[in-house]
Amino acid sequence: MNIKPLHPSRTHRGVTSATKFATLIGDYGTSDFVLKRGGRLHEVTIAYECWGQLSPNYDNAMLIFTGLSTGAHAASSEANPEPGWWEFMIGPGKAIDTNRFFVICVNALGGCLGSTGPESINPATDKPYGADFPDLTIEDMAKAGHHLLSELDIDHLHAVIGPSMGGMIALAYALQYPEECDYLVSISAATRALPFTIAMRSLQREIIRGDPKWKNGFYEADQEPETGMLLARKLGLVSYRAAEEWHQRFDRARVSKERRKNEPFEIEFEVESYLDYNAHKFVGNFDANSYLYLSRAMDWFDVADFAGSVNAGLAKIHVKKALIIGVTTDILFPVEQQQEIAEGLIKAGRNVEFVSIDSINGHDAFLVDRDHFSPVISDFFAQS
Amino acid sequence: MNIKPLHPSRTHRGVTSATKFATLIGDYGTSDFVLKRGGRLHEVTIAYECWGQLSPNYDNAMLIFTGLSTGAHAASSEANPEPGWWEFMIGPGKAIDTNRFFVICVNALGGCLGSTGPESINPATDKPYGADFPDLTIEDMAKAGHHLLSELDIDHLHAVIGPSMGGMIALAYALQYPEECDYLVSISAATRALPFTIAMRSLQREIIRGDPKWKNGFYEADQEPETGMLLARKLGLVSYRAAEEWHQRFDRARVSKERRKNEPFEIEFEVESYLDYNAHKFVGNFDANSYLYLSRAMDWFDVADFAGSVNAGLAKIHVKKALIIGVTTDILFPVEQQQEIAEGLIKAGRNVEFVSIDSINGHDAFLVDRDHFSPVISDFFAQS
Repeated sequence: MNIKPLHPSRTHRGVTSATKFATLIGDYGTSDFVLKRGGRLHEVTIAYECWGQLSPNYDNAMLIFTGLSTGAHAASSEANPEPGWWEFMIGPGKAIDTNRFFVICVNALGGCLGSTGPESINPATDKPYGADFPDLTIEDMAKAGHHLLSELDIDHLHAVIGPSMGGMIALAYALQYPEECDYLVSISAATRALPFTIAMRSLQREIIRGDPKWKNGFYEADQEPETGMLLARKLGLVSYRAAEEWHQRFDRARVSKERRKNEPFEIEFEVESYLDYNAHKFVGNFDANSYLYLSRAMDWFDVADFAGSVNAGLAKIHVKKALIIGVTTDILFPVEQQQEIAEGLIKAGRNVEFVSIDSINGHDAFLVDRDHFSPVISDFFAQS
Repeated sequence: MNIKPLHPSRTHRGVTSATKFATLIGDYGTSDFVLKRGGRLHEVTIAYECWGQLSPNYDNAMLIFTGLSTGAHAASSEANPEPGWWEFMIGPGKAIDTNRFFVICVNALGGCLGSTGPESINPATDKPYGADFPDLTIEDMAKAGHHLLSELDIDHLHAVIGPSMGGMIALAYALQYPEECDYLVSISAATRALPFTIAMRSLQREIIRGDPKWKNGFYEADQEPETGMLLARKLGLVSYRAAEEWHQRFDRARVSKERRKNEPFEIEFEVESYLDYNAHKFVGNFDANSYLYLSRAMDWFDVADFAGSVNAGLAKIHVKKALIIGVTTDILFPVEQQQEIAEGLIKAGRNVEFVSIDSINGHDAFLVDRDHFSPVISDFFAQS
């Protein structure tokens, strides 16, 4: 296993001292990683972190796929004590209990937080792939996770888990490797994107593409389309939260005069300031092309591709039990879409627990609503 | 009354052969029109259209304020047989019956469809105002409508009517001139914008401002920030419709290969094509600065400004009866905000009819859902 990233100068983003790297074995005995839509990648690197101990018979592994913008650092560890994006969920005695499970979290293929993606060096040209990165799908991200497990000599998962985009990847994983995982946890995911969500994401992509600095995907590393990324991220944030939460949190509070910039049409309301602050934190820490590739992959994903219809696709999932979680205020991956997953699995005879969480936090609830999420996931694994 | 627009070369947009123009009398015997936030405008022109006959005792006038993007051409007429934006609602025998009422629809002050706005010529410089246009509020738009009525020698309205932004203006009208109108119809409006809506609008404004061609509001008439306007309009359209409508209408239908452009990250789903088509129709027909001024005015509007709280403000409205309409799938001006208007008026002892319409068309329902809207408004006026 290659523990050195192939693009060390570009993997600073989201890569922590706890991050490990694996170079995946390719298909057909070659080093080529063949993608669903026909493209090929050479020497694919996947960044991951892990917690807990792999049991002597390798039967306690959990694989977590992430949402669009988060990396492999899901929880703190000795190697990196900084809190991870799912700190409240993963750890000794927590809902995903690292005293019991060996937990692996991967940065998705195509991401920019350590795994091979559009800003990685294309060995054929010695330059970043940019928009020459091949068409990427959710199925490819699942496959890269599977190849990583092969590298770790793990051929069976106790569970595959994912929220948001990660939930789509978890579904694809369970579809592609139906005999290789016992439990599935899908949180605020979808069997396929519906038009409102496609529109929200398409618009984010168009905003980035509309930034003259995007240059058709071939910008320099220090000349990123930051204006486009800032605006796209703000639009993303709007879709991740719920109106009622912001109403309670900000109402119509104004930014104090001292904090204003005295520009025409400047930021005036606290909600605008909140978006600006959070979007600025993101820009510079995420590659614009990665954003485009991952975003489009979510639009393309369709469980029906596996068997002709969504329900026929879901019937190909053979886990012992699935936990399907939705959030009532989620406008991006609405709870009805979670119910669709649950009902499709039940129709196929699977054992399913469906939980509709009445959280005020919208799509992002899994990241912030510890009180609602921890018990549900803890109870599920207590019985697994 | 001046029937010649002050800026003839710039009023082609949305101005039809039926459009009339009035130069408003200013405040305090001068020609200055003093705005709520302190700015002044000279020789304000308001574009309007009218239908029906004013009764001998001038008691059958109705004033309609419009949403952000529509002009005074609400319905066809002999002078202009083209269908208007509310064609199904206004006409002989229709819900707003022009056999009975004299109906006036105005292009809001600050708009770009014939009324004085940022692209009008600033008499002080002989150039367009651009971002030198003074701060504009919903209250100013109501006042301009009131001044227009003075020009027409109408001192009392049978009803003031408005959907969306027009509903806010109608509320402001009823607040500012409580003894001068008998009936109020507010459709999908708000007593004040809440953070989700502010965020959606702020982001549209930031997208326009982020277009290098915006030039801080001082672009040339033939060098408009079209990319910013296109993207802002798309975002607007996303907020005007409801997810379920698009699901039923587009699902995951793809654009045929012949209609694709073979660009990276090109349009692929029909919902993207729909947005692109409709946004392109808008760009070039609407001034970017007008969009900014009207959009911000909606964020600023707050009924509480009139009396210290929303309910105290609503209590200042003294119509004989109000019809308050909301749509269950509206995410921009949610039905709860319509209920708030109705309840505030009821608390103040007003006679109120509140109708929650279960339409699939979201915020735009008033424009397209004839079957739900016509009977409600028809019944209301039948009893007025």
